[in-house]
Formats: sequence, C-alpha cells, structure tokens
Amino acid sequence: MRGRLITLEGGEGAGKSTVLATVRERLAARGLDVVVTREPGGTPLGEAVRALVLDPAYGPVCAESELLLMFAARAQLVRSVIEPALAAGRWVLSDRYSDASYAYQGGGRGQPAARIAELESWAAGVRPDLTLLLDLPVAQGLARAGSRAAADRIEAERDDFFERVRAAYRARAAAEPQRFRVIDAGAELGAVQAAVTAAIDAYLAAQDRR
Amino acid sequence: MRGRLITLEGGEGAGKSTVLATVRERLAARGLDVVVTREPGGTPLGEAVRALVLDPAYGPVCAESELLLMFAARAQLVRSVIEPALAAGRWVLSDRYSDASYAYQGGGRGQPAARIAELESWAAGVRPDLTLLLDLPVAQGLARAGSRAAADRIEAERDDFFERVRAAYRARAAAEPQRFRVIDAGAELGAVQAAVTAAIDAYLAAQDRR
Repeated sequence: MRGRLITLEGGEGAGKSTVLATVRERLAARGLDVVVTREPGGTPLGEAVRALVLDPAYGPVCAESELLLMFAARAQLVRSVIEPALAAGRWVLSDRYSDASYAYQGGGRGQPAARIAELESWAAGVRPDLTLLLDLPVAQGLARAGSRAAADRIEAERDDFFERVRAAYRARAAAEPQRFRVIDAGAELGAVQAAVTAAIDAYLAAQDRR
Repeated sequence: MRGRLITLEGGEGAGKSTVLATVRERLAARGLDVVVTREPGGTPLGEAVRALVLDPAYGPVCAESELLLMFAARAQLVRSVIEPALAAGRWVLSDRYSDASYAYQGGGRGQPAARIAELESWAAGVRPDLTLLLDLPVAQGLARAGSRAAADRIEAERDDFFERVRAAYRARAAAEPQRFRVIDAGAELGAVQAAVTAAIDAYLAAQDRR
C-alpha cells in the first residue's frame, strides 16, 4: 500500500522540531516505516539551495527567484525522496512543504497564488495527505525564535511579513479543513503535544477504517 | 535613451567567448557603454546557482529543477543587472539568455515550451533586442569543446541531447527572424568574425535610422 505524506507547517518559533519528534515516534509506534525530511533541503541539491535562500551572503534574492529556488529544491525532493518512499509504502514526514510557499513567497512576498499553484502542479505533483499547522501569534513566535542564534535572511524580516505569512497559512487551512489540523502552538508544551498526538491518532484511526 | 539587450547563443564549442569579445569591441568603438554578463550567473546568487546546475557533486538534478534554477538565476540577473543597465541607457551583452532555456531545458530535456514561456513572462520579463546564434554541426562543436578541461554536468550529455539543443535553437531563430542572426560558427575564425561584425554593424545602422 502506498504511504502517506504528512507535513508540518508554521511560522518562526512554532516548535516544529519538537512536534516533528512527537509525530515520528507516534507513527513508528504503530509500526510505520517513517522517512523524515525538510524543506528547503532533503537532497544534496536542496540543501545547497537552502543555503542560497537563507544566507544573506548571496546578495539580493528577488521574490521571483526565491519562489523558483524553493520549487527547484522541492521538485528534486519529490523525485529523489518523497515519491520513491511513498511508492515503497513508507510514510514521509516533512518539516514544511508546498504550503510554506503559499505562506512565505505568496503571503509574505506577494507572489500570486495562481503562479504558485501552477508551479506546484508540474514541479511538485505530490500533495500532502495530512498537514499539521502549528499556529501562534507572531509576537510570541518571534520571542521564542529570537532566543536562538543569528537570524537568517527570512528570519530577519519585519513583523508585518510574518503577519502575512500567518494569515496565508490560516487561509490555506480554512480552505482545506479535510487536510489541515490547526494546532494551538501558543499553548504550553504538554498541551501542544497532546493536541498533536490526538490529531495523529485520529488520522491513523480514520486510515484503519478505510 | 533606453539601452539594448544583445544575447549570444549557441551550443558547445561554438566560440561564444571569442565572438563576445568582438561584439563588445564593436559596440564600444561606437561609444556605447557596454555591460557584459553571462548565464547562468552574473550575480552572486546566479553564480552560485551556476555551480549547482553544472557541478555533478550536487547529485541528481531533475529537468524541472534545472529549469527552475535557470530562471531563478535569470530573474535575479534581470533585476540586479540587466534592467538597471538598460534603464540607464547602457547596452547589455549576455553570454546566453532565455533562448538557452528553450534549447537546453526545452529541446534537450523535454520541458514544454509553453512552461518555459510562462516562466519567461513573469520571471525574466526583458526580451533580447538582438540575438546572435552561433550555429555549427554538433560533432564539430563537441570536438572543439572536448579539447578543454573536464566536462560539466551538461557538457557530459550524449550527442543526441546536443542535436535536440541545436534543433531547438534553429527553430527559435526561424520563428523570430527579425531578432535572430544565425552565424555559421563552423566556418574559419576570420569568416565568423566578419559575419558577426557585419551583423552588429547592420543592427547599429538600423538603430541609427530609427
């Protein structure tokens, strides 16, 4: 049986790394063979593209280039990692995927959604089966992220950029309630983990009934 | 007055570097302020993308990623270099540009022309005013290129790939005879230089009459 693609989405300081570990354990406990990857990245090409996009040393990167680079990394990730894994019955858990382009390059940078959808159709192809959106107020997320190391090119954006990112993510979730589970990532850690676990368990139970 | 964009196109071993120097001198002799650039490259981002596309060390690069990377580099080159130069009245001479995507990623890798045209419309925007296509038989070009250093990822392709590249270039030239000048790059150097000089002089004379 073909595997499933589960994606984690969310803004800065949403706690994706912690949640990713929780989801991975929950799936593995069910005996599922899980492949973990991240975007941009996940392949030699994708990790190099990640450096280009995030490191300010490469000079200006226009919104169009940023969008194209994200899909260049994604196209290779789908063909080298995601599609082969799904075809082999493995489950793929990705730290960000296409929805991030709608949020960051669409909402954040103003690239038209139709343009992103067009790229998604031929460059990515594979759509997520389940997406956990870790949602929290921008100020709270930035306060958490701010306690880390130096900001990369995207983390260095202003608050209104992240407000647009959050709004675009929430609009995506509202438009596809079947695929999205919105997690209140502003809650205390135990509550976030419980919500994530409940969402994964409910999804697995629904799969068992199919 | 707005400057002009002149592009040089052609396959492996076509002698673009030599012709580029000739064109540059011819334009400079007319007192034109010339900016020389190349694709992929021409900006810090573009040169980094060039390495990703050409260096086999980055692992597999699918046709879709290659196309997206080329346009990511091009979008930044247009915004950082080409458009500002043209707006300032400078002439831009580029070693390859959009036609190369139709030839290599289209003809060579089979990416649909409509897909490339769509990317061209929003990612590049600026179209060349004059394009010199250095055309020669594939075997002759490869024999010349083969005497150079180790092949990069694209140079390492098979002959039929380069035959498709050449056919796509020639089809582009046939479809836009107003913009293209096809130079017989298989001729001896003096004849190639004379043909290039004549093409540039005729273009400049036509500009003077406008």
